Formats: sequence, structure tokens, C-alpha cells
Amino acid sequence: MKTFKKTVVCIVVLAVAFGFAHAQFAKPEDAIKYRKSVMFLIVQHFQRMGAVVQGKAPYEKSAFAGNAEVLKVLATLPWQAALEPGTDKGDTTLSDAVFKNQDEFKKTVTVFENETAKLAQFASAGDLEGSKTQFGVVAGSCKSCHSQFRTK
Amino acid sequence: MKTFKKTVVCIVVLAVAFGFAHAQFAKPEDAIKYRKSVMFLIVQHFQRMGAVVQGKAPYEKSAFAGNAEVLKVLATLPWQAALEPGTDKGDTTLSDAVFKNQDEFKKTVTVFENETAKLAQFASAGDLEGSKTQFGVVAGSCKSCHSQFRTK
Repeated sequence: MKTFKKTVVCIVVLAVAFGFAHAQFAKPEDAIKYRKSVMFLIVQHFQRMGAVVQGKAPYEKSAFAGNAEVLKVLATLPWQAALEPGTDKGDTTLSDAVFKNQDEFKKTVTVFENETAKLAQFASAGDLEGSKTQFGVVAGSCKSCHSQFRTK
Repeated sequence: MKTFKKTVVCIVVLAVAFGFAHAQFAKPEDAIKYRKSVMFLIVQHFQRMGAVVQGKAPYEKSAFAGNAEVLKVLATLPWQAALEPGTDKGDTTLSDAVFKNQDEFKKTVTVFENETAKLAQFASAGDLEGSKTQFGVVAGSCKSCHSQFRTK
């Protein structure tokens, strides 16, 4: 009986979780548009920081830290949208490897999230040298994910 | 001499600020794409909260507060992009009223930012009734801005 109850609870929990995940987007195109929007913003803010890191733009602590803080928030957003079934079709570069290797995908994006959060810490502390090194680490985590889970 | 020095300092400060504002986007289309991306995300997260407010989705404190927190950050982002000269042309609904009434525009978006921050406070405190009321206030601030500064 206990096993039965546990099974029912598990099914309900899974159903709610599944339903919740799906209720996030009215249609698959919205999930694609959502993650593409986030990615565009990530690139914009990362490029602004990159210009400072490369000495092409002046370092202003509050602007640099502000970009890092926005990046930290954006970094957490696109992954549920990436896991929407069927959204490797259409106007997207998402590889079906995301669905085939979900655990690896989640591990990879968690690294990105964590490294981005560290970058925000360096930037908030006004540690430009630390930020430069960490910027490279974040860039590496972008590449690592793209090479596995992006089609081009 | 003091006046001259002050004038020079003012010009330098303005030049840096102006140059900085313009360095944010490689081309006008990027500014348009930037603010449209942010707006799409704002709508998505606001709709998720709206479903709870309207009783169409269950209230889960952490998810609700998470959406409000993301919204608070997103609410601060699109305005510099909206003030990029010439970006009322092209694939956009931005009205040229933004450029004609910049002070009013800035005032209006500041109201939106502040009301969104308050919504995040209510949501973070787990105050659903307060959140519902404040959700309406935020929706009103959206409308107020759109009616003045959006073409359709």
C-alpha cells in the first residue's frame, strides 16, 4: 500500500512538474523565441564586458558590474525553454543532443551559471584583473556548451 | 577661469556619456532587437504571473517571486536602447514621441521600474494579495507608457 501511495505521489509530482514546465510557453515557437531573446541579450552584455576586458572600452566599475549582474540573471533563464520537446526543429540552432543527453546538458549549463555568478562577484568587488580571468572562464563555458548542443 | 574649467569638464562628461550610450549598440537594428527581446521576455514573465493572479495557474511562492525578480531586472534594461536616435524607423513600434518628450518618457519608465520593484517585494514576502493589487498597478504603468510612446 505504501509503495502504491508513493507511486501515486510520484506520478502527481511528475505530472505537476511536467505540466508546469509546459505551461511556460503557449507554443513551441515561443520557447524558441524566448531562448533566442535571452541569448541575444547575453551576447550584448557579454560583448560590452569584453570590450573592457580587451581594453577597447574604458573600465567603469558600476557599468561593468551592472553588465555582470544582468548577465548572471540572464544566464539562468534559457534552459527550461531549451528542454521543450520538439524545439530542435524550426528557426533554431538547438541540437537534438539536448534531449539525448539531458543530464550532460544540465551539467554544462550549471557550469555556465556558476561561472557567470563568480564573474558578477569579481565585477561587484571592483576586481578588474580577477574579472578578466573569470571572463575567459565564462567564455570557455559558452564554447563548451555550444560545441555539444548547438548545430552551427 | 573656473567657469571655463567647469565648461570643459561638463563637455568631457557629456562626451563620455554620449559616446558610452552610443557604444552600446553596433548598429540601430541591434538597439531595436535588444529592446524587442527584453519586451518579449517581460511579457512572458508577466503573463506567467498574470495566470496566477487570475487563478488560472497555482500559486507557488518561489516560482512567482522568481518571475517577479526577473521582471524587476528586465524592467531596467530597454530604455537606453529606446533612446538610440533614429530607432523609431524600421521593425519597431517605437513612437518618435520618445525623442520629442524625452523627459516625460524617462519619468514614465521610471514609474514602471519602481512599480515593478515593489511587485518583486510583495512577491518575495509571499504576500499574494498585495502582489495581485501591485500586479494591476504595474499593468497600468505598462499601458500608460504604451499609450504615449508606442505607435500601435
